Amino acid sequence: MTQPFALTASQAQARFRDGSLTVHDYATSLLSRISERDSTVNAWAYLSPELVLQRAKELDEIPPEKRGPLHGVAIGVKDVILTKDMPTQHNSPVYTDDAPKLDAASIAILRANGALIFGKTTTTEFAATSVGPSHKGPKTANPHDPSRTPGGSSSGSGAAVGDLQVPIGLGTQTVGSTIRPGSFNGIYAMKPTWNSISREGQKLYSLIFDTLGLYSRSIDDLKLLLDAFQLVDDDPIPTTPFQLEGAKFALLTLPTPEWPAPGPGTASALKKGAELLRAHGAIVEEITLPDEFRPMYKYHLQVLAGDGRVAFLPEYYTSKDKIHSSLIGHVENVEKHTRKDQLKAFDELAAMRPKLDALSEKYTAIIGPSALDEAPSGHENTGSAAFCGPWTAMHMPVVNIPGFRGENGLPVGLSVVSGRYRDQHLLRVSREVGKVFESEGGWERCI
Amino acid sequence: MTQPFALTASQAQARFRDGSLTVHDYATSLLSRISERDSTVNAWAYLSPELVLQRAKELDEIPPEKRGPLHGVAIGVKDVILTKDMPTQHNSPVYTDDAPKLDAASIAILRANGALIFGKTTTTEFAATSVGPSHKGPKTANPHDPSRTPGGSSSGSGAAVGDLQVPIGLGTQTVGSTIRPGSFNGIYAMKPTWNSISREGQKLYSLIFDTLGLYSRSIDDLKLLLDAFQLVDDDPIPTTPFQLEGAKFALLTLPTPEWPAPGPGTASALKKGAELLRAHGAIVEEITLPDEFRPMYKYHLQVLAGDGRVAFLPEYYTSKDKIHSSLIGHVENVEKHTRKDQLKAFDELAAMRPKLDALSEKYTAIIGPSALDEAPSGHENTGSAAFCGPWTAMHMPVVNIPGFRGENGLPVGLSVVSGRYRDQHLLRVSREVGKVFESEGGWERCI
Repeated sequence: MTQPFALTASQAQARFRDGSLTVHDYATSLLSRISERDSTVNAWAYLSPELVLQRAKELDEIPPEKRGPLHGVAIGVKDVILTKDMPTQHNSPVYTDDAPKLDAASIAILRANGALIFGKTTTTEFAATSVGPSHKGPKTANPHDPSRTPGGSSSGSGAAVGDLQVPIGLGTQTVGSTIRPGSFNGIYAMKPTWNSISREGQKLYSLIFDTLGLYSRSIDDLKLLLDAFQLVDDDPIPTTPFQLEGAKFALLTLPTPEWPAPGPGTASALKKGAELLRAHGAIVEEITLPDEFRPMYKYHLQVLAGDGRVAFLPEYYTSKDKIHSSLIGHVENVEKHTRKDQLKAFDELAAMRPKLDALSEKYTAIIGPSALDEAPSGHENTGSAAFCGPWTAMHMPVVNIPGFRGENGLPVGLSVVSGRYRDQHLLRVSREVGKVFESEGGWERCI
Repeated sequence: MTQPFALTASQAQARFRDGSLTVHDYATSLLSRISERDSTVNAWAYLSPELVLQRAKELDEIPPEKRGPLHGVAIGVKDVILTKDMPTQHNSPVYTDDAPKLDAASIAILRANGALIFGKTTTTEFAATSVGPSHKGPKTANPHDPSRTPGGSSSGSGAAVGDLQVPIGLGTQTVGSTIRPGSFNGIYAMKPTWNSISREGQKLYSLIFDTLGLYSRSIDDLKLLLDAFQLVDDDPIPTTPFQLEGAKFALLTLPTPEWPAPGPGTASALKKGAELLRAHGAIVEEITLPDEFRPMYKYHLQVLAGDGRVAFLPEYYTSKDKIHSSLIGHVENVEKHTRKDQLKAFDELAAMRPKLDALSEKYTAIIGPSALDEAPSGHENTGSAAFCGPWTAMHMPVVNIPGFRGENGLPVGLSVVSGRYRDQHLLRVSREVGKVFESEGGWERCI
């Protein structure tokens, strides 16, 4: 029988319902997995077993008829998201042991639905650098090959979910901080439509890009979360499974150089992904965005520089000697961006959004790469976000679907993307695409 | 000699510098003013004289060469902005006595510059309704006529600054929550360019509209604040005073019905304001925006409804019985907005922004009404925000300049507006416009 820690959240909930597992015993199993594995993976910035077991006990004491839709769902929380009963440290010495008594909006919603907020997972500094995080010790490692990065900035959540230490993780994404670790850790990752879930209480980098991200090992689990966050599309979602037969996908690339050439693992995944979809009766059209979209990534980074100039001014004033040079660079505008250029970038990205929505309406979904390749070696750098940026800039929902393998046997995922506020549609499509990619893509979980 | 409480922040700072006033004595004077007046005005949601005097003493102990640019500047903070040493209650029973140990970004910056964070001022519920606030007692009143509203949602900050209880107030604006109380209370009010000051730690209503607002009784004081927040225009600001002679203003109206007919006080202020500018050698062109801008206010409210649906979901889950019906209406989408309509509104507003910037470039500044008329009678409703909404939606900086009087002798202000990120230019222009309006507009402060 599967050990409780290896269950998805939905599977664990089924066992809570049939009485074969208590939340307390489940939490104990997760804690033992963490105890066994985390000296290798280092995914946690804060974890109090006593607090977890206490909350688990409280959840078990709720009578079945009063339990919420997320009853007992264990969630690792990226350490840039406020939790009223745990510190929030942003991987920054400025915030060591800092513990405001406040839940982020996302945490309040999850708790109100019965979730078990498990602990805080490592992040790059303020989710705003690509320096692989440590928490006062060894750096967070990829569970599938601890010599490699788990990606970032949502490093700990991606690694912990990939390592069966917790079924659900919260991340954030401002460029590629949720989807990239999703690919590197062989898990499902979702960046919902921008501002479809409140970002209140989540460290600010960019108002117009920052998005809460979700990790799981199953589409059922993502569905639980989207429903708790009340994401509703305009069009009702059929209760029947989505049919790949006759569906039409766009395999999309952006004009270079903003869209780099994929590495061999990703190139092979794109090729195989298209073949598999076609083999299951779908149409896959290879398309390249017109030249007007070329500056998308440049615009993204220009806006981000201006946003960072505003967002990190408090820390610049109070603790300049304790923040990363790239953040000081934002505040001091070392790249000498003008307001005029940044407004142009902001406005041009805004003008592209309805165009990309219109394009996406012609297809069931868009397919693209999630990361340059399998996770790179080393822990210092979390890898390139170039493939993820466009969908963040466009506010479009994205799901990373695992299933492929790179040249070194590490997982590689692909991104499935739809128009804004079609998150539930995207999830329905991703469920069927995921079944195919996971069973026929060539990568198998070995941990 | 002017009592210390009646000084502007800049005037008080001059006296700290020449040694004729300590921050402690200044704070004592402000506290005595509050003690004398606030049973009439009810501007404060939280005020601890002990804490204020303790902080004042600490500021006095800083050696002169180590004092910050905002040394001793006393600031009332709207009670939707987090302060680590005071509760933040949002005028909501959900947050009674709630006191997370966290400073909003704006507060951290102000403190780092030497400001004296004085206390928390009343707000409408979450700065998101137009029901005049009380704080567990009588409702906040207009200091110039306590039978009238001070406006909202930044009710307490507007009233306290207008009543000489504190020289600087922080507000917020999502539609017209800073500029309207500025007009009603006869003070300067500034809504800077959207996202030019970090909104982190300020209660969320709308990511794309919410803006920190600033109150003062002088342009010098606003200048102190803009510099501390490091607002910098692209074009260097001449050190010489701005010359009204030869300047060109647009007196702007929007097509009805989104832009209502002004009441007699505002109509008279617009007429007199234009006459005064012309008398001082400026050109004033009366312009009406083209029809393509007609739906601006409708779009603003559509986006806001969608944003409220997301922002108040936590309170809806945890405390539905304790939040205003309009917020429940947002979450339940009772107006049945579609995602498609809200995206159209979001995208169309984005497309209007560069057009309004381009229009504003043709003028020194745009002049418009700040409020429908002088402050209406009663305390239940904080008045219409219709004249303020467009500039909020367009992200453009606005300064309310006091100086005119309504039919009942209450103050009436006008809005001066420029393109995005021209905040320092706008302030330089406002200084000279303010001198004229304040000295020749016809309203005189009687308190």
